[in-house]
Amino acid sequence: MTPRDVSLAPDAADLLEAARAGQRRALARVMSFVERGGAAARDLGALTFAQAGHAYTVGITGAPGAGKSTLNSAVVGVARERGERLAVLAIDPSSPFSGGAILGDRVRMSDHTFDEGVYIRSMATRGHLGGLTLATPLAVRVLDALGWPWVVIETVGVGQVETEIVGAADTTVVVVNPGWGDSVQANKAGLMEIADIFVVNKADRPGASETCRDIRQMLDLSAPGSWDPPILTSVGTTGEGASELWDAICAHRDHCTVSGELESRRAARAETELDEILRARIAERVATLTDGPAAERLRERLTRREIDPYAAAETFLSDAL
Amino acid sequence: MTPRDVSLAPDAADLLEAARAGQRRALARVMSFVERGGAAARDLGALTFAQAGHAYTVGITGAPGAGKSTLNSAVVGVARERGERLAVLAIDPSSPFSGGAILGDRVRMSDHTFDEGVYIRSMATRGHLGGLTLATPLAVRVLDALGWPWVVIETVGVGQVETEIVGAADTTVVVVNPGWGDSVQANKAGLMEIADIFVVNKADRPGASETCRDIRQMLDLSAPGSWDPPILTSVGTTGEGASELWDAICAHRDHCTVSGELESRRAARAETELDEILRARIAERVATLTDGPAAERLRERLTRREIDPYAAAETFLSDAL
Repeated sequence: MTPRDVSLAPDAADLLEAARAGQRRALARVMSFVERGGAAARDLGALTFAQAGHAYTVGITGAPGAGKSTLNSAVVGVARERGERLAVLAIDPSSPFSGGAILGDRVRMSDHTFDEGVYIRSMATRGHLGGLTLATPLAVRVLDALGWPWVVIETVGVGQVETEIVGAADTTVVVVNPGWGDSVQANKAGLMEIADIFVVNKADRPGASETCRDIRQMLDLSAPGSWDPPILTSVGTTGEGASELWDAICAHRDHCTVSGELESRRAARAETELDEILRARIAERVATLTDGPAAERLRERLTRREIDPYAAAETFLSDAL
Repeated sequence: MTPRDVSLAPDAADLLEAARAGQRRALARVMSFVERGGAAARDLGALTFAQAGHAYTVGITGAPGAGKSTLNSAVVGVARERGERLAVLAIDPSSPFSGGAILGDRVRMSDHTFDEGVYIRSMATRGHLGGLTLATPLAVRVLDALGWPWVVIETVGVGQVETEIVGAADTTVVVVNPGWGDSVQANKAGLMEIADIFVVNKADRPGASETCRDIRQMLDLSAPGSWDPPILTSVGTTGEGASELWDAICAHRDHCTVSGELESRRAARAETELDEILRARIAERVATLTDGPAAERLRERLTRREIDPYAAAETFLSDAL
């Protein structure tokens, strides 16, 4: 750990204590540290690791406009009626377009704003998706360590990274709409792979049953696993199907726990996180390398085409490694 | 350079000679080395740098099914009529779905298969998009050094990485379809940013003029630059609009050359490439680190939750950097 880490550690520890004591503002600050990454985030990672490992994570994804948040809000309502406490992480893509949609989503989630048993946090990419691959598992660990038994991760499943993030949850719910079966979508394959549960939302629209059938056929084509993903229907705006979805989530949770799949999923996740952390630390290292006057001169030679980028890289690295 | 580099250098040099002599099979092998990366790719980078710097690169992107390759094939035909020689790099995303589409695209590009003045090469991601950020500029440099005056880079603009790759071209063409204006698309903002030229393809379908108007409005909202992206229409299947597109590409080329924007774009590109190379080289270094019995033990402690991933990363890095 660098001195910078150490100096930040107490701050992080105090914040965690305050957050554990139920101070929402402190929790918000902790999450901002997580979002920003760097040394403070690493401290939080170290500080929370020991207390974590108890929360169950549910990923909810689907195309923009599929009605994820409305449905999610209904499901959270069902879980609350059953006495569960949930933290919701809403992963906001950096695009200003979908950004707007997400903003609307937050408004819909506001049913639970004054419920002490629900914590809702939006995590922004700040235009750097890679950051979320690192920030999301850490955010989950922090909420886990602070005693939230359920962490729901909601993303717009358009990008590869977002799909990976939500696919890394203990249970992944893919929300689609009638007509999805025959629509051309870039990420369709990715969504098929990660889905533990399918929900055809807006099922009051025509074509819902055909879409269920299409998904069934697509599933039959893929290699059978120990779990056969159920295909549910819902109408998020009325809450129809929300309790069935919560039941399915709990059923998959039981399956994963009994089958030992939960353990293996989490082990794989720890390794992925390690790789991501290494990648990020390397990027930091590169940033410091390509900084400073000597680097500046080398970069000028590069832009003047006096040296090729591969040779320039070797020069940088010979100093670094 | 490590001994391994040196030992591979002659091979790469011979291949380049054969490729320069017009042997397509040698060129194909060179491109495979580029695709694979590693030491041989670095040799090629060093060997080709001096001869490169003359080719002009055109990036063509757009959502799957927008008709990029059909349009691209028509544009290549126009350029050929005007006596230009072109190399086409088709960046294949790893997704099986768009992969299929791309396969179809290649078939459409086959109009030019027996034309000595056209070289078409698909570059696969092998599921590792990051590799393309490195392989594409190197592939361009090799084709450049081998005397191809035009290099057209075609990608499916779904992912962030592919957008970056094609956005790094000297001229970037974004292909959309009628209705794109009001469609919700994850990468819309990204495409708006990189477009030097817009083409509304399949313009024989309803809504083409509305889409042109929508794009115009979106452009008016963004900060004005020295170049105002033209918005063209085309019907790739009939070739309608292809020669206007080629004219626009040449017009933007002239603008960039005169305004000095070409220089600054290429300088920025060289720096980006350097960063990517550094990242890849250090990642290689880490890969060797996270391999072997000691690393295995550390990983086991991680999955047994005896150590947190951040601490594990520090341990790996302390050995590496």
